[in-house]
Amino acid sequence: MSAPLSVAVQGELGSNSELATLEFFAASASPGDISIVPCPTFGDLFAAVDDGRACYAMAPVENSLAGSIHQVWSLLASYRPPVAGEISLRIRHCLIAHPGTSLSQIRRITSHPQALAQCAPFLQSLKDVIVEEAYDTAGAVKLLRQSGRRDEAAIASEQAAVDYEMEVVQQDLQERDDNYTRFLVLGPPDGKSASEWKVTVLMRVGESASQLQRLLTSLVGSGLKLAKVETAKRPGLPWEFDLYVEGLTDDPAHTLPEALKAEPTLLAEPILLGPYPRGSHAEPQVHRRPR
Amino acid sequence: MSAPLSVAVQGELGSNSELATLEFFAASASPGDISIVPCPTFGDLFAAVDDGRACYAMAPVENSLAGSIHQVWSLLASYRPPVAGEISLRIRHCLIAHPGTSLSQIRRITSHPQALAQCAPFLQSLKDVIVEEAYDTAGAVKLLRQSGRRDEAAIASEQAAVDYEMEVVQQDLQERDDNYTRFLVLGPPDGKSASEWKVTVLMRVGESASQLQRLLTSLVGSGLKLAKVETAKRPGLPWEFDLYVEGLTDDPAHTLPEALKAEPTLLAEPILLGPYPRGSHAEPQVHRRPR
Repeated sequence: MSAPLSVAVQGELGSNSELATLEFFAASASPGDISIVPCPTFGDLFAAVDDGRACYAMAPVENSLAGSIHQVWSLLASYRPPVAGEISLRIRHCLIAHPGTSLSQIRRITSHPQALAQCAPFLQSLKDVIVEEAYDTAGAVKLLRQSGRRDEAAIASEQAAVDYEMEVVQQDLQERDDNYTRFLVLGPPDGKSASEWKVTVLMRVGESASQLQRLLTSLVGSGLKLAKVETAKRPGLPWEFDLYVEGLTDDPAHTLPEALKAEPTLLAEPILLGPYPRGSHAEPQVHRRPR
Repeated sequence: MSAPLSVAVQGELGSNSELATLEFFAASASPGDISIVPCPTFGDLFAAVDDGRACYAMAPVENSLAGSIHQVWSLLASYRPPVAGEISLRIRHCLIAHPGTSLSQIRRITSHPQALAQCAPFLQSLKDVIVEEAYDTAGAVKLLRQSGRRDEAAIASEQAAVDYEMEVVQQDLQERDDNYTRFLVLGPPDGKSASEWKVTVLMRVGESASQLQRLLTSLVGSGLKLAKVETAKRPGLPWEFDLYVEGLTDDPAHTLPEALKAEPTLLAEPILLGPYPRGSHAEPQVHRRPR
């Protein structure tokens, strides 16, 4: 028996980060062989892989509805971690309560603010129910289990119901089904070949917008097919923006073009993460783990 | 005597929007000839010029430290107003109290959250002072005057102190001096010639990032010199982004290139505002108005 594969996730057991972990490593490890390292913050998540507490870490970089998670992009630039791959996980929200609870008994529902927002029409259809924000979806289920309250419920993944031995009262509460969170998997690449590779390029740009077209043209000229281009204001820093670019390439050793490295208008050295194999979209699966 | 020039601003008399108004129209109207139409919200600001309550409206589109004001860009796309010009105003923050108040007497300071954030080092240097958020900088001064409290102060422009007959206790509290807010002046162009023209282009783009380089290349090919390129997530809409582009041109009749209008990957018809004369940077001046 090999040593368990340790993977750091932000949040509790049963979080979407954990579901993404199980899907990403499905071909190489069974759920029982994966040891989840829960991290309270994104900073701790990056530190876990940096200081060896975990082999890998799941870094959520963007959600199709809410957008990029700027704090994570910022940590990518600070830590410049190796990237083993990426995966996009569909997000499905369930109403979870103590076994035997019916919808009409529930008087209070807790979850992460983003999950609550994504289930707004469902929540608005309820009468006499108090909705309250929690720090984490799976964490809300954990607290509900501890409280023992049968007139309360939490919104989280089906996996969280299994993990905390609770019950799904209603499934697929989300308003939109095209709700995906994309994760970069931080850690050592496995060295296998892939049909398509991806790179993530992090740049810091100033007021001069004309450089943007030049930067993109330079990246395209180096053989990248652009997959994401996004700007994000650096709050408090006059006219400074982060520029997130991702591109596809068939070269597993793709590097930044010299012209980009020498671009005088960039406010910091450009950073390249990868190439890593282009990821797929996954549906969350429920796993019953040995306890 | 000509009819007064009516200009809608978001916020109260003495706000930075009003200072920008006085600077923008300085060559054509004295402060006494300008009638300010205060609007409680940005939506009301756009409606004011649309329904004729005001000839012009000052629409703040971005701040050098905080970034673009997405709500305003969104309203630009909805109303597609005529644009008479633009101006960037330097933001200077003063501590304002009842006449004769000294800094050591002050126990409570109120202002707009962004102003408070921009004066953080000053506020942190104070002892035993409660800091509280208000809806508007000048509005905080107005409320302070009404309250009559001599142990309180507000952070706002010097103009607000003059307008509400209060006193500046300390000037230039802001941490950074490169703090500018840029306004588009909505309303009929004055028809005069200009040495340089600017256009604002609003587009709605999807997941396909490769289109971005194509769009920018098409705009540059049509004779625009890019001055701003920014993306903003449309929250709740899967993979949808707003794309804000501004460019300089020497053609006062510049239009969008046909290729852009026919671009199949755009999620909505591209919108062009302008051309309008390229604006300048202005220092706020204090005006004593007839009462």
